[in-house]
This record gives sequence, structure tokens and C-alpha cells, in this order.
Amino acid sequence: MKKKIVLSVNAGSSSVKVSVYDVEFEQAPVQIAEAQISGLTSPPASLKYVRDGETVIKGKEVDEKVEGQRDAFSLLLETLIDDEDLPQIKSKEDVGIVCHRIVHGGDYTKPQLISNETYHHLEDLNDLAPLHNANSLGIVKLCIRDLPTANNVACFDSQFHSSIPEHIRTYPINRDIAQSNHLRKYGFHGISYAFITRSTAEFLGKRPEELNLIALHLGSGASACAIKAGKSWDTSMGLTPLAGLPGATRSGSVDPSLVFHYASDVGKLSPASTKDLHISRAEEILNKESGWKALTGTTDFGKITSAAFSTDSSDHAVMKLAFDLFVDRICGFIGSYYVSLRGQVDALVFAGGIGEKSSQLRAAVVNQISCLGFEIDEEVNSNNEIKDVVQEVGKTTGERDKPRVLVCQTDEQFEMARACAEDAEFW
Amino acid sequence: MKKKIVLSVNAGSSSVKVSVYDVEFEQAPVQIAEAQISGLTSPPASLKYVRDGETVIKGKEVDEKVEGQRDAFSLLLETLIDDEDLPQIKSKEDVGIVCHRIVHGGDYTKPQLISNETYHHLEDLNDLAPLHNANSLGIVKLCIRDLPTANNVACFDSQFHSSIPEHIRTYPINRDIAQSNHLRKYGFHGISYAFITRSTAEFLGKRPEELNLIALHLGSGASACAIKAGKSWDTSMGLTPLAGLPGATRSGSVDPSLVFHYASDVGKLSPASTKDLHISRAEEILNKESGWKALTGTTDFGKITSAAFSTDSSDHAVMKLAFDLFVDRICGFIGSYYVSLRGQVDALVFAGGIGEKSSQLRAAVVNQISCLGFEIDEEVNSNNEIKDVVQEVGKTTGERDKPRVLVCQTDEQFEMARACAEDAEFW
Repeated sequence: MKKKIVLSVNAGSSSVKVSVYDVEFEQAPVQIAEAQISGLTSPPASLKYVRDGETVIKGKEVDEKVEGQRDAFSLLLETLIDDEDLPQIKSKEDVGIVCHRIVHGGDYTKPQLISNETYHHLEDLNDLAPLHNANSLGIVKLCIRDLPTANNVACFDSQFHSSIPEHIRTYPINRDIAQSNHLRKYGFHGISYAFITRSTAEFLGKRPEELNLIALHLGSGASACAIKAGKSWDTSMGLTPLAGLPGATRSGSVDPSLVFHYASDVGKLSPASTKDLHISRAEEILNKESGWKALTGTTDFGKITSAAFSTDSSDHAVMKLAFDLFVDRICGFIGSYYVSLRGQVDALVFAGGIGEKSSQLRAAVVNQISCLGFEIDEEVNSNNEIKDVVQEVGKTTGERDKPRVLVCQTDEQFEMARACAEDAEFW
Repeated sequence: MKKKIVLSVNAGSSSVKVSVYDVEFEQAPVQIAEAQISGLTSPPASLKYVRDGETVIKGKEVDEKVEGQRDAFSLLLETLIDDEDLPQIKSKEDVGIVCHRIVHGGDYTKPQLISNETYHHLEDLNDLAPLHNANSLGIVKLCIRDLPTANNVACFDSQFHSSIPEHIRTYPINRDIAQSNHLRKYGFHGISYAFITRSTAEFLGKRPEELNLIALHLGSGASACAIKAGKSWDTSMGLTPLAGLPGATRSGSVDPSLVFHYASDVGKLSPASTKDLHISRAEEILNKESGWKALTGTTDFGKITSAAFSTDSSDHAVMKLAFDLFVDRICGFIGSYYVSLRGQVDALVFAGGIGEKSSQLRAAVVNQISCLGFEIDEEVNSNNEIKDVVQEVGKTTGERDKPRVLVCQTDEQFEMARACAEDAEFW
């Protein structure tokens, strides 16, 4: 019986999360610990550590010397090794597999084993997504050096979408340039959509191949996905995560000319660029200086929702604008994907921080798409905490053919560990 | 009884069309002649002249000295004056109103009387749409100088969309910059959508205020519009005509980062820029070097369709890709607008060159949206020529509640003349 300790590493723009699993080959991973450092862009950062479901460290200030994602990962690894009550990791040698969430995977259709020799394949992808891949790549490099006995695996947010058909993923631009510069729709949040597909299939008692879904991953980054026979058929993000729905600091899809009317220097490199990392001011504006933050002053969608529903609030008007705008864009994708799936939709699934927490957003969206047969159960939706992996919030009693409305607590770290557990190449 | 001769001028990127109407105040305009010069960008240009429905001149080569839109307009005016069988225009003084189609009208919600003193208001709009307004502005200036007794009226392609609600027209970007730089969704093809709305209301025996439509203006530029109670509720074009559906040379909506991965110099000014006209390479690429032309080598959608439906064709695969891509994007907007109109849709209306001519495209689109209750009448759609202003191609027999499928021969020149006939300010 083969067993390994698997670390799933998820590096965001201001945080690093490591989930630790006890994994038996071809079996479902069992989580034994989880450690996270957040607030890296607004120091002091803070550490949280949970072992066996029990919070061991919470909100502990992290030394200011811990600066970027690499430092944060090192500290998290140290925390795990130093914990005497976590006997599974006594030294670095106890780590069998480290799987890394990489946003842009280019043409990769499955997770890749990464060694010192193949690391440059990941660096090539950086050109397509300099804003998104860089955080993870630093940690991959560190692990290759510091954990020489572990297998490093890259899991890509784009890989789930490799099934999108050509007429949907193609941009109507010069074909030669599209080919040489790898310009097409890739799509992201795919690790989450893979988790959602599997969990929903289980919940509905269907095989994934029989399952059509419209899934919404709504967090500080937000996207929608049409899933046909268990595979991605279309998704709202594109060449990069910028396209589609707006997010905390992202504009989402806007007129591609817009940014040239925003400021005169948008084609120039951003001061944040480095020798290897070329980011235009335009990309920086649309990815980092737009979205909820630009519209309302906050990235907290909970605050936006509260103020949108309280006419007393001094910023009620702008918060309601942001809320209504988000609902409008989400419903646009739902309508579009409903048609794209020819009306054969088993369920609409909400996931991600906002999808799980905002019962008001779920209600607003589902009410607006009632003409497609979806119906929210107001009581269940507003009063029930989301505790299960998949939970029903729609009204379906008595109407077997009505599409369901579900909430899924998606878990990208688990999904990565699961993918590693199933692939003999990593063992 | 007040009567005036009204010229409706429609300047495209390589053509100028002038329609002549005999107009009685507050009555429907009566067309008496139509003259057009096309092929300005691939000389020699050619002249066509129709009087009272009879073709007088056809395919006549135009002197190479006739270079731009202004020259072309002068020649067309000369042709009208010189025609002894058109007694209504014996001299320039016989022209009462010239109405000009202007693509971008900024915040204007209705046609504007333009004088030498107010002309600069139109120039200000040029900043928002340098690629689109310039052709028309030259002719407006010429008319103010050369037809001093005529009233010049600017009709805007954006004015019909001034009813789009704030949460739909707002981009989630910095509010101050959006306000100071006038960055929001404006929408275009509005003169056409106004014609479609009025004609369809008449055809269905409804008042415009009772009418909900999903209208498609599909030509070398293509867009979709959700019309609610006779007014624009949403449309696919945005700040500029670039957003939304692809066209002959336009990409339509693509990831806003895409162009920065297309070439390294996209932020620089295009060599086509002038002192007053700033166009980035990026905008030039996405507006002029993309779309069908870039994907298939032709701008002729008829050719694309033929090859897409003939497996013998050597370029079958790429033509089918272009056809399927267009159908997918169109159906996406239909699904989105169906939801946005809460399923209350009286009819889907096809218009524009492709919408009127391509029975295959209409069939493909309607078959793909059958889950929303639309159904094509295959026989009527394929076999009947479109002769009426509005014609039915859907199957509705026996099902009163089913949304209709219509084709409308839209007529922007007529719509402009009609708007002038109704406004006392221009008389």
C-alpha cells in the first residue's frame, strides 16, 4: 500500500495557503493540516494554522522580513515541521509530493511533473500571464531546491478547459499571429470547476459524463463555466483571467478600445515590470485598479451587498449600482450558456467566497433567470448555513425536470491532491 | 403645407450614399432618388444612381481625382443637380435639409441642428471615435459651406441607446476617470434599431411601448440589441463599435489584454494617425485587421457561408470555423438578452446585409436557440425572397405565445429623413 504526504500549495496575489494531505494511491486524500499566511501586500502579514480541524495558531503577526510568496511558503513549511503534534512531517524528507496551483497552463491538458530540467517550460507560460503565474513559480523553484526528495507537480487552472471546442475558443484575429503568439481562450478557475463537477455529479447521483452544469466561481476573481457532459464547453475568462466577469480589482470584459481612452500612456510598461516580466500599464489598470475597488472603494462584496440593501446607507446608490451590475453580467453569462447547452442544464451551481456566502446575490441572480425555469427557495437560501460540500437552495419539489440550484464549497487544494493521488506518474 | 427636399447622407469607410426624399412636415418621407459611390479605398470608385426606382447610372467609373468622402459627396450632389429628370433639385438652393449619419453621438439623445458655430460640438465627439466619425464630419463641414440655405442635421447611431440603464451601461473602472473621459457603453446601429422597432411594431400591430425585441443588425459591422417597451435596454457594442460581435474586419469582444500579446508596439500611434486624429496601432489592428478578413481572407460572408456548407471546398474547415464562431457569438447575445428581458420577447428580428440575405445563418441561429421557444420555418426561410419591409420566417401557426422570427429590411436613410420630418426645429 503506497502512501505519501501531499502538500497542495495555492499562492494568491497577497497570500499563500498550504493544505496537507495523507494520501493513499488512487484513494481520496485525507486532510491533516492547513496553514496560511495572508496580507502579504499590507504587512504585517498574519499566520493561521489548523491541525486536524483544530485551530492551533490564529492571526499571529509574521516577521516583516517575510516579504514575498517564497518567504511565506518557507515559514509555512517550517511551521508544519516544527509542530510536534504533526508526526507525519518531521522533516522535509517526509513530504512526498508538492502540487502547485499555476494559473496559466498554456496547452497543458493535465498536471505536469516539474524538475529542475523542465522548469523552463513553466517559465515560458509566464509570457502569457506575467501578472498571474509569477507568484507560484517562485515557490516551485524553491521546492525543487529545498525539497529534493519530493515530486513537484504543477496543476493548471486552465487545464479543465482544454475541451472547449475550436469555434468557441478561437478569437477572430489574424490566424498566423494567433498561432505563433498562442492567442486563444484558455479559461481559468478550472481546478475549482473540476471539483464542482465531481461533487455535483455525486450529489445528484449522476456520472459526470451525464452532467450539464452552469457553474459560477464567484470570488475576488469571478468566472462562469458551461459544463457539458462533465467537460468544459465554454467559460467567461479568456486568454488571461481578465476577460468575462468583473472582480475585486478586475474590470472583466470591457470594450477592447476602452483602455486607450483611459490614459495616454497605457501601452508603456508598468513600473512594476521587471527584466523578465513585461506588464503594460493597460493590463495593470484593468487587472489591479478596476472592479469593485474602483467603483465602490471596497473589495469586500459583503459590504457592497449590505449597503446595496440598506437605503439608509450613505453610499447606497453606488453600492446598489455595483451589485446590480454584477447580477446583470452574471445573468448574461447564464443566459448565454443556457442556449449554448441547448437548454439541457441539470443545475446552476454557485461557488467561491461570494457564491457560498452571499444569499442575497444568489437570490437576485436566480430571480432574474426565472424565465429559464430556475427557482430559489427563499427560506432555505437565506436561513441555512452552507455546511455540506454541495447543498440545495432551489425549489424543485414535485418538478423533476426543473433545473436545480446548488451551492458548492469548492476546494482547489483537495482537487489538486486528488489529481495527484490518481496519477501513477507522480508516485 | 410645408414641404422640403431632404438628403440623407450615409458615409461609410469606403462609400458615400445619398438618399433624396420629398418630405412633408410630420408625414412619412417619399424617396425620389438615391445615389452612391463605392470602392473609395480600392479605386477606381464606381457610381450608381437610381431615380424613382429606375437605375439611371450603374457601375460608372469615377475619376481618380475623386479621393475621399468629401469629393464623393460633391460628385453625388452634382449628379442630382445635373439630372434634368429630377426637377425637384435644380440647384443647391432646392435642398432643404441634409441629415448626416454620425456614428458616435456621445451624450446626445436626439438629432442636432448643426451650424458653423456648433460644428465644434461634433469635433469633440471625434476623440471618442476617431476611426468612425471622421468620414462624416468632412461632409458636414462641406455642406455647411456649400449649401448655405440648407439645414444640416446630425443623426447619431448612439442616440437610440440613451435609454440603457446605468447598471448596464457602466464599466467597472475608476469612476472619476470614467466620468472625465466619458467612458461608458454608448452602443451603435441605433438609427437602424429605431427603424426596426417602428416597422416591427407596425407589422405586429402593437404600439412600440408594448414591444420587446431581440434585434440583430448583421452586416460588415454587426451588433445585437435588447429592446424593452420600444426602447434600447442593452446592446452589444460599447464605448466604440469594436465591442460585441465580430465583423468583416473587427474582432468584436476579445480579452482586453489580448492586443498587448499581439505585438509589442500596440500602444504607439498608428501611421494612419494625424495631428487631430489619434489612433493606436491596437485600435487599428482590432478594428481594421481582424474579423472575417483576418480569419478567412475574405470579408464576404456569402462566400464564407457557401464554403462552410460545401465539404468539397478547399477552405471548408476555416470557413466553417468562421460561420460556427459567428453563430455561437450571436446566440450568446440572444440568450443573454432573453434573460435580460425576463423571457418577455415578442420577436427575434434579423436585419443588415447578412441578416437579410443569409437564410443559412438565420436557420443556424434559430435552431441553436430552439430551447427558448424560437422556431424557423425552413421552407419559408430558404425559399422566399425578402421583399417586404418586415417578413416572417418563423413557425408560429397555432401557438400564439411563441416568439416570432422576422426579417426586416432596415433603412437608415429613411429613418433619418423621418426623424427630420417630425422635428419642427429643423423646418
